[in-house]
Amino acid sequence: MAYELYYWNGLQGRGEFVRLALEEAQAPYVDVARVHADGLGESAMLAIMNSRSEPHLPFAPPFLKDGQLIVPQTANILLYLGQKLALAPDNDLRYVVHGLQLTIADVVTEVHDTHHPIASGLFYEDQKDAAKARASDFLEHRLPTFMRYFERVLAQNPQGDAHLVGNTLTYVDLSAFQLIEGLYYAFPRAMKRFATRYPRLTALREAVAARPNIAAYLASERRLPFNETGIFRHYPELDQST
Amino acid sequence: MAYELYYWNGLQGRGEFVRLALEEAQAPYVDVARVHADGLGESAMLAIMNSRSEPHLPFAPPFLKDGQLIVPQTANILLYLGQKLALAPDNDLRYVVHGLQLTIADVVTEVHDTHHPIASGLFYEDQKDAAKARASDFLEHRLPTFMRYFERVLAQNPQGDAHLVGNTLTYVDLSAFQLIEGLYYAFPRAMKRFATRYPRLTALREAVAARPNIAAYLASERRLPFNETGIFRHYPELDQST
Repeated sequence: MAYELYYWNGLQGRGEFVRLALEEAQAPYVDVARVHADGLGESAMLAIMNSRSEPHLPFAPPFLKDGQLIVPQTANILLYLGQKLALAPDNDLRYVVHGLQLTIADVVTEVHDTHHPIASGLFYEDQKDAAKARASDFLEHRLPTFMRYFERVLAQNPQGDAHLVGNTLTYVDLSAFQLIEGLYYAFPRAMKRFATRYPRLTALREAVAARPNIAAYLASERRLPFNETGIFRHYPELDQST
Repeated sequence: MAYELYYWNGLQGRGEFVRLALEEAQAPYVDVARVHADGLGESAMLAIMNSRSEPHLPFAPPFLKDGQLIVPQTANILLYLGQKLALAPDNDLRYVVHGLQLTIADVVTEVHDTHHPIASGLFYEDQKDAAKARASDFLEHRLPTFMRYFERVLAQNPQGDAHLVGNTLTYVDLSAFQLIEGLYYAFPRAMKRFATRYPRLTALREAVAARPNIAAYLASERRLPFNETGIFRHYPELDQST
């Protein structure tokens, strides 16, 4: 049976980290909220979230449905799919992969908060000054701290620097690719010297983009473009000035 | 061999969620940074984080060392210990437990950001106005949204409302207790009607506090008091006014 992915229609957002894993593994899946058909669409997603009888309620999208099981939270979905789709080690190194994924999730939250530092329920325009301050701190301090860390993880991988863990692809490599793509979209000026500063992360990004299933996906209509409703938003006034 | 927990000395912080699991299970552990002895203390923690040869670098504390394996990220540590210490289901419901834990982690991050909405590297005093705005939104919108959700999860648990998942204790019950404790400490005015509004969460909180191993731990010197260096900080000006 096909996996059912539930995520808001019209944006990459956190759902994209899951899509990349499903696409790489060529797993059958339905992107439920994007299908206009009876019993599908965003109303099907909201029906689960508002259900008064569902025993395992998700707090928010994305969530994955596999038969009766509902798996919520991006990193948790990848943990689950990692085992099912052979995109994670089948030994204790799975916890190393998952730890890195949770650190990527932390970066994603911080990126979100560059445009919504005060309230996720308010418009960006209503928190622009705070957003400028938070984005400035993120680009000056947090982003280099995180990227130096991931570059070190690659450099110190005893099995070589082609993957974050071990010597084969795992879901966290795919997520690192997506994170870097998003950062380039949101902050092109701040990312200008990224390739020079982080050669291993850059090589990983290029290697993932060149994987046949990923390349086919990125060229397809299934890959939504980045836009200003997602996590990674290009607001030039939040980017570095030079 | 004893588990080694690495977390900053002097605060509960994110490390406390791990301590509660270890204490409930009576698992042998060393709280490394809190021990003043050769090879231990915060310097032992920093040595791992700064290592140029460690194959599985943690980004930040807390992390757990079990033999050679380093497991980083609070929720990931609990996922690992959940299996080892029988504090999680040994079937696919483990993903339901972990999803709830990751939602608690999201609340914890939002609580942190009530006092540090702009920059984690700056003092609270340097971002006080933004903190007031963010705390106000958190208490008015986010906290009720999260708490209504967890209350519903208890109400809709087909095995009864004594636990968040299934009919036995899991690590996420312990974390829910800690979350509620922290919220009472940080925002006593906003939490005034909590017990009336969320009777199931309140019963869970009381049941966890009454567990013999938890009660003994809370009464011991190992339980640090809440303070203004942790996640949950009591700044009266950030609490609700009535």
